[in-house]
Amino acid sequence: MHYSRLTERIAGDGAAAWNIHYRALERQARGDDVIILSVGDPDFTTPEPIVESAVASLRGGATHYADVQGKQRLRELIADTHRRQGGAATTTAANVAVMAGAQCGLYAVAQCVLEPGDEVLVPEPMYVTYEAALQAAGARLVRVPLRAGNAFQPDPAEFAAAVTPRTRAMLLNSPHNPTGQILGREHWAALAALCREHDLWLLSDEVYASLIFDEAHHCPDALPGMAERTAVISSLSKSHAMTGWRLGWVIGPETLVGHLSNLALCMLYGSPDFIQDAACEALAHPPAELAAMRETYRSRRDTVFAALADSATLDVLRPEAGMFMMIDIRRTGLSAADFADRLLEEHGVSVLSGEAFGPSAAGFVRLSLTVDAERLREACRRLEHCAASCLATVAAPD
Amino acid sequence: MHYSRLTERIAGDGAAAWNIHYRALERQARGDDVIILSVGDPDFTTPEPIVESAVASLRGGATHYADVQGKQRLRELIADTHRRQGGAATTTAANVAVMAGAQCGLYAVAQCVLEPGDEVLVPEPMYVTYEAALQAAGARLVRVPLRAGNAFQPDPAEFAAAVTPRTRAMLLNSPHNPTGQILGREHWAALAALCREHDLWLLSDEVYASLIFDEAHHCPDALPGMAERTAVISSLSKSHAMTGWRLGWVIGPETLVGHLSNLALCMLYGSPDFIQDAACEALAHPPAELAAMRETYRSRRDTVFAALADSATLDVLRPEAGMFMMIDIRRTGLSAADFADRLLEEHGVSVLSGEAFGPSAAGFVRLSLTVDAERLREACRRLEHCAASCLATVAAPD
Ligand SMILES: Cc1ncc(COP(=O)(O)O)c(C=O)c1O
Ligand SMILES: Cc1ncc(COP(=O)(O)O)c(C=O)c1O
Repeated sequence: MHYSRLTERIAGDGAAAWNIHYRALERQARGDDVIILSVGDPDFTTPEPIVESAVASLRGGATHYADVQGKQRLRELIADTHRRQGGAATTTAANVAVMAGAQCGLYAVAQCVLEPGDEVLVPEPMYVTYEAALQAAGARLVRVPLRAGNAFQPDPAEFAAAVTPRTRAMLLNSPHNPTGQILGREHWAALAALCREHDLWLLSDEVYASLIFDEAHHCPDALPGMAERTAVISSLSKSHAMTGWRLGWVIGPETLVGHLSNLALCMLYGSPDFIQDAACEALAHPPAELAAMRETYRSRRDTVFAALADSATLDVLRPEAGMFMMIDIRRTGLSAADFADRLLEEHGVSVLSGEAFGPSAAGFVRLSLTVDAERLREACRRLEHCAASCLATVAAPD
Repeated sequence: MHYSRLTERIAGDGAAAWNIHYRALERQARGDDVIILSVGDPDFTTPEPIVESAVASLRGGATHYADVQGKQRLRELIADTHRRQGGAATTTAANVAVMAGAQCGLYAVAQCVLEPGDEVLVPEPMYVTYEAALQAAGARLVRVPLRAGNAFQPDPAEFAAAVTPRTRAMLLNSPHNPTGQILGREHWAALAALCREHDLWLLSDEVYASLIFDEAHHCPDALPGMAERTAVISSLSKSHAMTGWRLGWVIGPETLVGHLSNLALCMLYGSPDFIQDAACEALAHPPAELAAMRETYRSRRDTVFAALADSATLDVLRPEAGMFMMIDIRRTGLSAADFADRLLEEHGVSVLSGEAFGPSAAGFVRLSLTVDAERLREACRRLEHCAASCLATVAAPD
């Protein structure tokens, strides 16, 4: 039977990146002592008041078709939260479309603003499913490297150099997965200026925005002339430990939101009402757990940092936000993929290799801060052993 | 800012069809005595064991990312149910992709099998969001009329005549919305033969399959040579009064399911785990309410049929399944849209006009069997008054 060309565009090797994670899960299921640091899913469950709000809503009969754009109250709460966190002061419920997660939000925005053949500038390394989400719309990813030597900060000049007449948009992600770095005010200003100059959309993936440890989050749609060309994409997945709920949103110009609603009508027919009710609770009464989770990630980061501080082989890139850390393994002499393989096979720790996120992250592995401090310390000991054994192998005369 | 051409393809007037429904809701909110028969959302809430299964799952911490293709157990249950209901005997969990509702399933299949410019034969009248779901993939709807004079049964010869070199698929819907008619064995055989002859995909929307009153449901993928070219699209929305849960699926060849999973990865990232758990409960232990709901729809159908049996102006098309009825209002002399308007404004009953579903349903209005028998009888009295008043107006000399 015939399949559409789209099926080739969404088949990329994003999926292959997860093999090591699945192998780790299998070994764990067989009873092996495996520490799984390969996935961006919090080890926390969703805070109880949010769960109980869904329960009350379900039992109250909120099991019918819901508003496709998103419930008015939820959209108001999302707009309020966004303004309070420094987003465009003009944001109202009319600027919000509720989506089945940030992933779905990105997919939908790509469908509504990109033509086949349009180019989108994306800093690389990048989150693994960006490629498929943009290519589903027929767009072409143009990778702009973030250099390890520059702490994975973007160089606006390289972005400017990558612009062509087909460039339609820029997709930025701050705080950044996998590097944990955030874009500072000056980088935002320079990249926003580029968007205005070349009439580009700015797609801003902010799913880790409430997991910043020290700095402030900068919302690009608050910059001059940016609200009209920015689609902020976010969700409750990471901030509220609600990955499995699939509740996210897009904030953008009303025209974009109208198109997104039309797409949601034929693609989703709305998010479940009881999930939207739980999301209202999450935003109306932010539970104490939110700050506690962020502090836990911070202290886990510090644990890993301290544990590997004296390593002769491994260097840690200190993340400013989020739930991931990048470890520089280049001095082991192995590729990150080979190192990750050996780390799982011989030492029982699963991490993702940097190449999975893009060539500029070669030589790094990404580790998730999703187990407790004691397990993290144990994971660091294993990492260090693995690295030392690599050195020994490489150094040994044969 | 620039928006993609897709935004034009999904903007159709499907949305406009709902205006009358929203007007009715507004009047009801203002306290008017309005009987709302304009929406396909059961007046039942989801059976309690299903709700409680979601509650237990939520409280048990099933709030993390779930299997993107759908949980193995859920896919097994969907496959088992499908085989038991007469679907292809070879169906296994590997033939199932879980989707956020049948709407999402149709959208996803269209993306995976249709190229821009491909033609899809769709009997008309049809469900209002088909157009956007197919056009999102760039496909062209080719409407094949179902004629009122033929009780809205398809004429396979008209389908054959509509095939061109660009025809890629046929989208059938039995039981049918809005007419409530089902396709019999011979129609299925003839249309399936056409699919084989011209190498077409058969997209089979079966969301009303478990609401058939007397006849048996025929699954086209059980016909010779059809499993490899059929995508069965269904959900728990109508059968289980779970419209708001957004839980549906596609059953098809494994290659299709692989592509759908890739699409789900970048478009959805899976259905919520606790919703999948509730769906397992729904299919593993079908609650007694299911048969009761079907019998309620049947008896409501009979109520309307009896209430309008002696009407001098209105004729009722007796549905064999589902939750809708078509009323022939042609003898009133008004268009269905004008009749529906007057019925709402002057008599406080909201129905959809047939034209919303396609030109062949002009002169009919669609009424939902989603209020109790007493309210339905009252609605029928109002319909009859409205029709009589139209006659009087039309007949009056001026
Ligand atoms: C950078 C980034 N964007 C988007 C997502 C998807 O988030 P959601 O669960 O809201 O779809 C993730 C998930 O890992 C992510 O890391
Ligand atoms: C014929 C038909 N197909 C599909 C759907 C959508 O069903 P779901 O809620 O599973 O998306 C409906 C809903 O009214 C329908 O009538």
